[in-house]
Amino acid sequence: MEFKIAELQKYTPQIGHLVSMMNYARYTTLQAVKGLNTEQLDFLPSENGNSIGALLLHMAAIEVGFQIEVFDKRRPNEQESAEWGAAYSLGNQGRQQIKRKPLEFYIDKLNQVRNTTLEEFKKRNDGWLYQERLWDDHQSNNYFIWFHVCEDEINHRGQIRIIRKMLHSS
Amino acid sequence: MEFKIAELQKYTPQIGHLVSMMNYARYTTLQAVKGLNTEQLDFLPSENGNSIGALLLHMAAIEVGFQIEVFDKRRPNEQESAEWGAAYSLGNQGRQQIKRKPLEFYIDKLNQVRNTTLEEFKKRNDGWLYQERLWDDHQSNNYFIWFHVCEDEINHRGQIRIIRKMLHSS
Repeated sequence: MEFKIAELQKYTPQIGHLVSMMNYARYTTLQAVKGLNTEQLDFLPSENGNSIGALLLHMAAIEVGFQIEVFDKRRPNEQESAEWGAAYSLGNQGRQQIKRKPLEFYIDKLNQVRNTTLEEFKKRNDGWLYQERLWDDHQSNNYFIWFHVCEDEINHRGQIRIIRKMLHSS
Repeated sequence: MEFKIAELQKYTPQIGHLVSMMNYARYTTLQAVKGLNTEQLDFLPSENGNSIGALLLHMAAIEVGFQIEVFDKRRPNEQESAEWGAAYSLGNQGRQQIKRKPLEFYIDKLNQVRNTTLEEFKKRNDGWLYQERLWDDHQSNNYFIWFHVCEDEINHRGQIRIIRKMLHSS
């Protein structure tokens, strides 16, 4: 396998760099959950913690949230909030609603959502990537927003690795 | 505060992008450990786990490792191995050797190491960033190596956030 941050076919140069990072992050996420069964995906590391399954769905939910905000330029509608709310917010809602699914369920969601992002990236260019926008009241740009999607995934992959370690020692 | 991935003064354009990411990751790391005392920094989430202090020193150790490999083009010498070995490897060594230090100790190390990286980046250009090299037998480039330093930090910041949550509930 090749690990480079560089231009990629089908994307403008800087979007290619961003997609290189997102691809690598996703590769490591999938490695981190390889072979887990439903019981393991539902395991709660603590009373107030999140399961690996919930963290996986959260990664997809964060990406959906930014697709709606950045690509569609609107707020989530009722159907979207119902589908993604628990995964977006995690906590109690997540613990109650996200369980009893096999790994394939989460991977399918991650793939579906990611495909939409990549299709939208193909329609855009580096000028768009540098366009400024607000992020939580901070001056930001589209490049940062999508870097943040990637770094949020990496953050939770780190947590998944800890939780997986706990599985083996419990 | 401004959160953008973009060019930065004193660096060539693509190195500026990379430093934007590293700066953001570091900002979130420091936020994640703000106000922790020595006892909290030494807390072990599980028998085989790592303390927050050890994870902080690990971030610096990984960066030192790549400085030696990439900038100095050599292997760590004895003194460096003695100083950074436990933080690099974590596990038992880390649990035994990394403790009883205040937060400032870790922050000083992180700052010292980061300053060296940034000074080295200022001497280099985008051509260097795209130079290919092997990473664990995979085809890679310098951009990827330093993105990886950043993503390893983000991964452990995610773990620090979980461990900090355990502190409050224990």
